Amino acid sequence: MLKLNGYEIILASGSPRRKAFLEKLHIPFKVKVYPSDESYPSSLKGIEITEYIVAKKSEPFKEKILAKQIIIAADTLVCCDNQYLGKPKDVEHAKQMLMFLSGKSHQVITSVGFLTNKKFDIISEITNVEFRKLTYDEIGYYIKIQPPMDKAGAYGIQDWIGEIGVKKINGSYTNVIGLPLSQVIERIQFLTKK
Amino acid sequence: MLKLNGYEIILASGSPRRKAFLEKLHIPFKVKVYPSDESYPSSLKGIEITEYIVAKKSEPFKEKILAKQIIIAADTLVCCDNQYLGKPKDVEHAKQMLMFLSGKSHQVITSVGFLTNKKFDIISEITNVEFRKLTYDEIGYYIKIQPPMDKAGAYGIQDWIGEIGVKKINGSYTNVIGLPLSQVIERIQFLTKK
Repeated sequence: MLKLNGYEIILASGSPRRKAFLEKLHIPFKVKVYPSDESYPSSLKGIEITEYIVAKKSEPFKEKILAKQIIIAADTLVCCDNQYLGKPKDVEHAKQMLMFLSGKSHQVITSVGFLTNKKFDIISEITNVEFRKLTYDEIGYYIKIQPPMDKAGAYGIQDWIGEIGVKKINGSYTNVIGLPLSQVIERIQFLTKK
Repeated sequence: MLKLNGYEIILASGSPRRKAFLEKLHIPFKVKVYPSDESYPSSLKGIEITEYIVAKKSEPFKEKILAKQIIIAADTLVCCDNQYLGKPKDVEHAKQMLMFLSGKSHQVITSVGFLTNKKFDIISEITNVEFRKLTYDEIGYYIKIQPPMDKAGAYGIQDWIGEIGVKKINGSYTNVIGLPLSQVIERIQFLTKK
């Protein structure tokens, strides 16, 4: 459906959810990830953080990239009350994060980098997510049936807790899962057009 | 998780998606649907239409309802450029609807009625959904793999076309599928509290 016009896509992310999203485009792509630390200067805020990390993830490709290659890197961050939430350390930490998100709004920020041998662009999307007040029972049950240890903010919006607990969102839904898919498609269309 | 305190839930909807949502609450419920025509006075607009139809769907239960029963009825409508979209008549109609929704925003309105032997409440949610410009190929492929003939507006946001085509939403995601689940839970909690 998406015509690549001879371009090759390389996904610079080990996330199974991002890989599953790209597979929905029915285009061939490879996955290639270089180890990179995800630390960032403490002066950075919000989108600056995700854009910094995406630039870092793309950096190792710059020397090796060939013509007609597109390297896609991405980073997602959850921000609530000026605190940034990564992946939970353990079950107790996951419970704490969900109690913290319960009954209020937070932001999910994803930045996606598109590196070619000509340029490097980043698109960033912010989605506002509002949870209703969750109960201890609901949080405990969720962590038992769908352990969110690999998810920033300790939840997946596509999981049970997202279905029963999220009141509303404002922005891209797939962005919350880790890739604003519609926006990524538009960017690939733009980069590969003749 | 949800304590019903002796209340019995009856879902007055034959929609498999609404039934699947209620099942996620892990509460016992029955499904009971009376045939009702879904016509409405042409003077009605938006929420007035879905509230009118929900009231109609709840009407047959009023004489028979017992103490500690909650009858839940719902209706969903898709509205774009002041036109109301129901379920498509055939494949051609589905394609037309999706071309019509492509590249712009529309509203999905769901009203949910809660009937007890004491009162009748309706909650209504509006979710704004924005599609990017879809291609004929994408629409044709979608209709082939996930025929949307039973869906208002000829799409499911949880389907492939929703994942690859919806840029952003503003409002409840589950509302677009047919039941604003978080809001429904809050209302059941309110109605069943001691």
